Amino acid sequence: MRWKKISDAVVRRLPLYLRVLDELAKNKDAKLISSHELGERAGVGPALVRKDLAWFGEFGKQGVGYEIEYLRLELRKILNLENVIRVAVVGVGSLGAALARFHIKKFLEDESFNLKVCALFDADPDKHGDMHEGLHVRDMEELEDVIRSEDIEMAIITVPAEFAQDVATNLANAGIRAILNFAPVKISVPDHVQLATADLSLELQRLAYYLQEE
Amino acid sequence: MRWKKISDAVVRRLPLYLRVLDELAKNKDAKLISSHELGERAGVGPALVRKDLAWFGEFGKQGVGYEIEYLRLELRKILNLENVIRVAVVGVGSLGAALARFHIKKFLEDESFNLKVCALFDADPDKHGDMHEGLHVRDMEELEDVIRSEDIEMAIITVPAEFAQDVATNLANAGIRAILNFAPVKISVPDHVQLATADLSLELQRLAYYLQEE
Repeated sequence: MRWKKISDAVVRRLPLYLRVLDELAKNKDAKLISSHELGERAGVGPALVRKDLAWFGEFGKQGVGYEIEYLRLELRKILNLENVIRVAVVGVGSLGAALARFHIKKFLEDESFNLKVCALFDADPDKHGDMHEGLHVRDMEELEDVIRSEDIEMAIITVPAEFAQDVATNLANAGIRAILNFAPVKISVPDHVQLATADLSLELQRLAYYLQEE
Repeated sequence: MRWKKISDAVVRRLPLYLRVLDELAKNKDAKLISSHELGERAGVGPALVRKDLAWFGEFGKQGVGYEIEYLRLELRKILNLENVIRVAVVGVGSLGAALARFHIKKFLEDESFNLKVCALFDADPDKHGDMHEGLHVRDMEELEDVIRSEDIEMAIITVPAEFAQDVATNLANAGIRAILNFAPVKISVPDHVQLATADLSLELQRLAYYLQEE
């Protein structure tokens, strides 16, 4: 399934809805949710909730609302969370290793997210062969071969800022289709690659603004 | 200085402009930039660039553009990046420790960001007294006292999701005014606290969507 014409703004809201539904699904008594309540919990207006979901099918009944568990499972399918996604981590400093433990391993254990970290890369020869979570750290020169042979689709970049663009270009050339960038720098990727940024510095600068004396 | 009525949407774009100017400032030959070029590099329309900056003063000349170094320094002042901001990290698992090294220490070394991590907290008694970057890990029970006595304004939350809301509430009660949340859960804070989220799971779910077969 793929819905080509759907804008990224819609796609960005789907995980917000899913998070609300995951939370509600823990309480077995709740069966139904209105678009009003779903929107309120997700921080989105109710009309937009209905419009976003209508792109993908008819999930609710007017005046009744959405069945929580049904919509939750449908959203997981729409977001492609039922399939295993094979991931490479590039840059195995302390952040790369910690992310693998803090987030990605958590998703694996929860069975709510099918990311599978399949390869680790680092430019530092001293790290080659080090083991993390059962994977050894590989040379950057192996990047393209390993990504192709291991069928890896997504990469997480945790290298220092000055190397991030070169890494992203190499990843795109190797056939990677989605990149999550942790390096504190803006990078460019070809149109066929989706980019997401976990950018601490922009958020910290925004917070700093609000800490000024009044 | 504080500009109360300026919307957060404007504030969020200022770090994008600053990043472009920081980059251009490395090249000493470039002196001026048009709103058009600044907008293009920051991913913002030129009219919006002019409107955003006009909230804070008259920085450019019509038909000439902005002086890069002057605007860069003014934006640093507007964003409150010249003052030291004292920070606590709550949750000293591998992620908290790695963040301290990867990002925050980098900012300190660059002298482009005046964050100073002043205290580390963790709920696990086995970690109390451990040293990271010259700071020892403290008991959560000390949170309020230490935040007040050390004059800490900002906190970074890197605890597991199920504890994040309680930690945020305690931080708000202790007088913290800005929180960066890394826990993969939505948390609520009082109006006087600014919240920013570094949420890996929402971004990863969005990327997963784009990895579907066509």
